[in-house]
Amino acid sequence: MTMNHRVILASRPDGPPVEANFAVDPVPLRAIGDGEVLIQNLYVSLDAGFRNWMNEGSGDHILPAMELGAPVMGLTLGRVLESKNPAFAVADLLMSRIAWEEYSITDGSQHWLVNLPAGIDAPPSYHLGILGDTGMSAYFGLTDIGKLKPGETLLVSGAGGAVGSIAGQIGKLQGARVVGIAGSDAKCQRLIDELGYDAAVNYRGSTELGAAISAACPQGVDVYFDNIGGPLLQAAIDNINERARLILCGAISDYHTNKAAPGPNNLFQLVTNQATMSGLMCHHQIDRYDEARNQLMAWVASGQVRNIEYMSRGIERVGPAFCEMFQGKNFGKTVVQLAD
Amino acid sequence: MTMNHRVILASRPDGPPVEANFAVDPVPLRAIGDGEVLIQNLYVSLDAGFRNWMNEGSGDHILPAMELGAPVMGLTLGRVLESKNPAFAVADLLMSRIAWEEYSITDGSQHWLVNLPAGIDAPPSYHLGILGDTGMSAYFGLTDIGKLKPGETLLVSGAGGAVGSIAGQIGKLQGARVVGIAGSDAKCQRLIDELGYDAAVNYRGSTELGAAISAACPQGVDVYFDNIGGPLLQAAIDNINERARLILCGAISDYHTNKAAPGPNNLFQLVTNQATMSGLMCHHQIDRYDEARNQLMAWVASGQVRNIEYMSRGIERVGPAFCEMFQGKNFGKTVVQLAD
Repeated sequence: MTMNHRVILASRPDGPPVEANFAVDPVPLRAIGDGEVLIQNLYVSLDAGFRNWMNEGSGDHILPAMELGAPVMGLTLGRVLESKNPAFAVADLLMSRIAWEEYSITDGSQHWLVNLPAGIDAPPSYHLGILGDTGMSAYFGLTDIGKLKPGETLLVSGAGGAVGSIAGQIGKLQGARVVGIAGSDAKCQRLIDELGYDAAVNYRGSTELGAAISAACPQGVDVYFDNIGGPLLQAAIDNINERARLILCGAISDYHTNKAAPGPNNLFQLVTNQATMSGLMCHHQIDRYDEARNQLMAWVASGQVRNIEYMSRGIERVGPAFCEMFQGKNFGKTVVQLAD
Repeated sequence: MTMNHRVILASRPDGPPVEANFAVDPVPLRAIGDGEVLIQNLYVSLDAGFRNWMNEGSGDHILPAMELGAPVMGLTLGRVLESKNPAFAVADLLMSRIAWEEYSITDGSQHWLVNLPAGIDAPPSYHLGILGDTGMSAYFGLTDIGKLKPGETLLVSGAGGAVGSIAGQIGKLQGARVVGIAGSDAKCQRLIDELGYDAAVNYRGSTELGAAISAACPQGVDVYFDNIGGPLLQAAIDNINERARLILCGAISDYHTNKAAPGPNNLFQLVTNQATMSGLMCHHQIDRYDEARNQLMAWVASGQVRNIEYMSRGIERVGPAFCEMFQGKNFGKTVVQLAD
């Protein structure tokens, strides 16, 4: 009998998630019924935003709140092993918003499932990174909201993270001066050496973050790509230029608070600078994913953009790897491989 | 000898401005020199935003901080009495960003001066309200940022104020359901009776402001026109729909704090709703003022939009009338007439 190892929500995180919030729970794999499909999950994509739905009562129009003792909701890339559903064929590769588990059984009605796009010559895991939601967020954030002009300054928080690592590289291709914010000197160095950032600010090393950003951005900030929220957003706003565009993509600094933290105290600067702050959910642009993927893939193929992965292996690594993102240990997209 | 009564900044406000912050200071009116013009100010326009520059060290790229003992900076509408400057002729009507005073002398290099547009058949004071910056803010906020579609819900804070009273009426003409937030039951009633609002929320009467807004906006909020900031902004964000547009026009609740107040704790809802929050400074659209004025004047002429004024008379009323805005006593545009 095949056992399906699933990661269940053992307790709700109080603050940043810790390993004890998650437990690996093996259950026998049942047979599929009519209309169902059996997926072997090859990769789990770890996305900090899912922390949001681990709080009690956090359900919204996007997802319900996660349930204690149930598998943790998340994004996977898997292969169809068996199908009694005409929409899916054996050996199909599927992206699924489903659960942190080795195998998933679904009839597709309760879960977001989509076939990997055909004709793309890239490792499958790239579809969780640069060719997936994180790449889409970077691309649509910069093309639809940022609209950088050559010579402008792009500031990216979470600059070494899944989205930030791509956003910074795209900003360089668009002719911007690109400055990253990250949480250690070592990461800052990698931003410059591996991703082509022009300068980097270690937010843990700066007591005066606003001044540190100002020093790194002597011409001010035209576009801020925010993956962090909280004090970093406020410090960035203190440095915006007239008609600045702020892209709110994530807010990892807020995900782990059960009580909402105060927002930036300087929003009036949006008025005096006639600046715009826009929230970004890449799913709204799903009809333009092909456009974005083609461009990103062309950049990857030509070596102009790198897809950096923070990869580990095995279902028991899923919970810890999720926690490590909140500790800032990752560089690039956090992925756990479950099978070949 | 003609005396020029000026309102000087006697002390810096600590919180909302009070009458003692201002003093009337008579000085002899001097003769003008080469290149100068003598303006008799007929009306003073009172705009809460100027409170911002009464704080020590508040200078920015828009205006310097006001100086203790110097005339308070503000917007006036005046008539040229004498001119040694070829750019201005006797009897010209000028809008000036200059000072709260009966007479102004300037060579135009340090002050923003502009002739009233010709060919508009309206009382001159309308150029401080619906045909001036407040009307422009309402118009450009809704046309450029709000982009209301018929049937959508527009929520306006400071709904009975100079900008809000016009924004609400434009929203109705654009086919929206329009809901106002004001600070008393009497004002709420006037919003409905005099300005055509569909519903109104008294923020002082609601312990649960978010729930009160939700009850008044059962379809959610598509566009929020914010003149207040602070807790009202946060409560509005709690009620936004997907792809909502938030217009930050003013933040009277923050102007009177010398220490910045925390911002909204729910900005992440901008992300999950892919909403946009944009700061508005109507001066950036100055090349389109004619377009806006023609439309607004057409609405006024046809009786579709009213220009409501909170008018009093005499230089000694300028300071108190400014304070009354912060107490919520005004309804419509606050103007003090100094001369005929």
